[in-house]
Amino acid sequence: MCFVVFFLKDFAKDRYGVSAMVQSQQKLDRALVRVEDLTPHKVDQLIWLRARVHTSRAKGKQCFLVLRQQQFNVQALVAVGDRASKQMVKFAANITKESIVDVEAMVRKVEQKIESCSQQDVELHIERIFVISQAEPRLPLQLEDAVRPDGDGEEEGRATVNQDTRLDNRVIDLRTTTSQAIFRLQSGVCQLFRDTLTKKGFVEIQTPKIISAASEGGANVFTVSYFKSSAYLAQSPQLYKQMCICADFDKVFCVGPVFRAEDSNTHRHLTEFVGLDIEMAFNYHYHEVIDSITDTMVQDRYQTEIQTVSKQFPSEPFKFLEPTLRLEYTEALAMLREAGVEMGDEDDLSTPNEKLLGRLVKEKYDTDFYVLDKYPLAVRPFYTMPDPNNPKYSNSYDMFMRGEEILSGAQRVHDPQLLTERALHHQIDLEKIKSYIDSFRYGAPPHGGGGIGLERVCMLYLGLHNVRQTSMFPRDPKRLTP
Amino acid sequence: MCFVVFFLKDFAKDRYGVSAMVQSQQKLDRALVRVEDLTPHKVDQLIWLRARVHTSRAKGKQCFLVLRQQQFNVQALVAVGDRASKQMVKFAANITKESIVDVEAMVRKVEQKIESCSQQDVELHIERIFVISQAEPRLPLQLEDAVRPDGDGEEEGRATVNQDTRLDNRVIDLRTTTSQAIFRLQSGVCQLFRDTLTKKGFVEIQTPKIISAASEGGANVFTVSYFKSSAYLAQSPQLYKQMCICADFDKVFCVGPVFRAEDSNTHRHLTEFVGLDIEMAFNYHYHEVIDSITDTMVQDRYQTEIQTVSKQFPSEPFKFLEPTLRLEYTEALAMLREAGVEMGDEDDLSTPNEKLLGRLVKEKYDTDFYVLDKYPLAVRPFYTMPDPNNPKYSNSYDMFMRGEEILSGAQRVHDPQLLTERALHHQIDLEKIKSYIDSFRYGAPPHGGGGIGLERVCMLYLGLHNVRQTSMFPRDPKRLTP
Repeated sequence: MCFVVFFLKDFAKDRYGVSAMVQSQQKLDRALVRVEDLTPHKVDQLIWLRARVHTSRAKGKQCFLVLRQQQFNVQALVAVGDRASKQMVKFAANITKESIVDVEAMVRKVEQKIESCSQQDVELHIERIFVISQAEPRLPLQLEDAVRPDGDGEEEGRATVNQDTRLDNRVIDLRTTTSQAIFRLQSGVCQLFRDTLTKKGFVEIQTPKIISAASEGGANVFTVSYFKSSAYLAQSPQLYKQMCICADFDKVFCVGPVFRAEDSNTHRHLTEFVGLDIEMAFNYHYHEVIDSITDTMVQDRYQTEIQTVSKQFPSEPFKFLEPTLRLEYTEALAMLREAGVEMGDEDDLSTPNEKLLGRLVKEKYDTDFYVLDKYPLAVRPFYTMPDPNNPKYSNSYDMFMRGEEILSGAQRVHDPQLLTERALHHQIDLEKIKSYIDSFRYGAPPHGGGGIGLERVCMLYLGLHNVRQTSMFPRDPKRLTP
Repeated sequence: MCFVVFFLKDFAKDRYGVSAMVQSQQKLDRALVRVEDLTPHKVDQLIWLRARVHTSRAKGKQCFLVLRQQQFNVQALVAVGDRASKQMVKFAANITKESIVDVEAMVRKVEQKIESCSQQDVELHIERIFVISQAEPRLPLQLEDAVRPDGDGEEEGRATVNQDTRLDNRVIDLRTTTSQAIFRLQSGVCQLFRDTLTKKGFVEIQTPKIISAASEGGANVFTVSYFKSSAYLAQSPQLYKQMCICADFDKVFCVGPVFRAEDSNTHRHLTEFVGLDIEMAFNYHYHEVIDSITDTMVQDRYQTEIQTVSKQFPSEPFKFLEPTLRLEYTEALAMLREAGVEMGDEDDLSTPNEKLLGRLVKEKYDTDFYVLDKYPLAVRPFYTMPDPNNPKYSNSYDMFMRGEEILSGAQRVHDPQLLTERALHHQIDLEKIKSYIDSFRYGAPPHGGGGIGLERVCMLYLGLHNVRQTSMFPRDPKRLTP
């Protein structure tokens, strides 16, 4: 009897609980409001909402919750009264962090702005609360630790989360405001790249990733078992996008994975990354190509995401000039030599010299983005067009962000005879690139292009320091999971 | 002396020739007009143009050329007169087909429409002609043969081109109006897919293709050498896109290669194809997901491309209903049984039965596109949500175009305990999918999605009969080149 009395006493017992698993039992005619839409114009409305329990704190006859959806959150309150019983408040207080709940609540204006939430002008007075999906009580990492800037709160013994723990528990790490901002920006970068090019008449192409011969030389290529034979993973879409130019597509782009079997464990190398690739026929000068590429990048968007990330990872605002600064290699050499660097005319830039050059350019021109043009021919791939005025140099360029290379490109050799000569000079087996060279035998327009590493652009644009932060599920020589 | 006299006699000698290779020697201030812009409003203008020589025909003191850019072409004429010498006409007549030329020409109105060209109202009177890139005289295939409908002109002994010849010489085959239309449509399908979803708040994600365990079971997976160990090529982005849902991205899509090591040499199998994948959290019913997917497809665009392709490959116009027809599996079974097919309640559809069903649905509902819902649980992957009302069925669906499957999708199991049970039931090694199952332990919303094969959609939408026609560089068990 006592048992029954207990239940009878809870007048709110239908107003809370753990829901049956949503198995599409019914088409419920219930609109769910988004947290980001909880603004003063919703005040005094009774709404339904689905969100995660970000934090909860019981306090006497009340329980305060912060409810979260992606980068947005709102304060909510269950208080003993005519809508909630003591049992209901206790139930709410015991919901584990990161659980997903459906709540029915009255939107109320607050006297004082709630500084700790994204929705600062309102709070929710909960009238019903149901758990849709329960999180286990022990989280492998705490979201508040995962967004804490390095060194912050160290005195109070507050933790930050190291990179391997983050990556091992990526599903939780990706829920932080910082991660949400990074990957929404990344999605936006791809969109901007494609939209800009589509408007200019570019066609999107899909190039094969399984190939019969190493596209860019035999080193650093992954081998695949292919039925009774073997094949390789494409190190770039280079040869295919050029073949599309020979096939009259005129201007093409592709977005897809590229694979590099480099055993490099640095902050900027991945074994698999996303390439944003361009190739286009031009009329008379390859600078037409450079202009098309820079147009996809120099745009001042995503300020919200940039600010969110900089709360955890502060960085200097990204500066660029319009038109984009273009320096010739010989000018860069002169700047480096003036700064004390010893380099031959045809030497490639080392990574430290790239960074030094980035600082010198920033000092002199106040830009974090520039094009370095006319690289020595000797340090570029065989298909690079030599400079017509100086055979030691070439019609090729790299683009730099904050002193690191993000793009490599060039005018390509479109003449099959010169291409054969250049391949032989590089001691490339002509048999293996036969179908590539043959592509140019039936009329090929002058053309050029370039390839951008998506993760690297995002890292540098946001002023981050490790490319694993801008790859959702990074791959390096030591990491294949999750 | 005779030699000198010969040259002196050619007053037009500066008006034609083979140009030096375009090596970006200069930034020429010369606007090049597009063939598609050669309409009557350009009449009596002197313009420059770069195009391929599609055909040429000398006739007395004249040479007629057809100049082509992608799917557009125009008639041009070099005639002996005050701008062109006999030598110049001869030079023009000897330019090999598919060579690229720069011409300066006067645009003239024609008396009678030129039916054989896309630009029917004007022709070009050439005043200068320079070869930019010379094609070799023997082409591996003729473009006019490559666009000829099967059986057309057989009596006159005219050839068509078989598929292997096409694919071996893909760079030339892709230049036909049919290929240009197919791949411009394909580019458009991707754009439409992404734009529709982006407008609905979806985020684009990039998922890894090199994975540590076979994502969809061990059969049909390619193995990759990964430094001192080995790895696999992803058979789908399935597990990763679900992990993104658990990581609060709410609605995601991705476009990228998927790999299937199936030794199938059919008209519809490739070992590498492009997947258009969707995953989204829904509120109460997985039909919310179906609606989002069908919205990306049922749009009446690309009529020009469709008409171009149908000139070579005639097909019935593609029909669809709005809203999209949704049939339940049991209804389909009844239709098939009525047509004499013997099938058990939990049997999967064979390919011939899928096609038969497509014909029955077309007869009854007059649509080439429909959703088949509520598949038997037994024939679907372990992560498929069972039907709450009948444990023999599931919350899963396929979509069909012209009687062939283009998409497979479902509500997924978001409860880690049920997911574990279902994996065990399918005898899957739990250790190998640990990080996947763990993703659901910290709160996971109900969600569903699906994956579309891009090449298959394009093939069926255009009424083509081989998926290699809609893959630029197809990969099958026997083909890895070009």
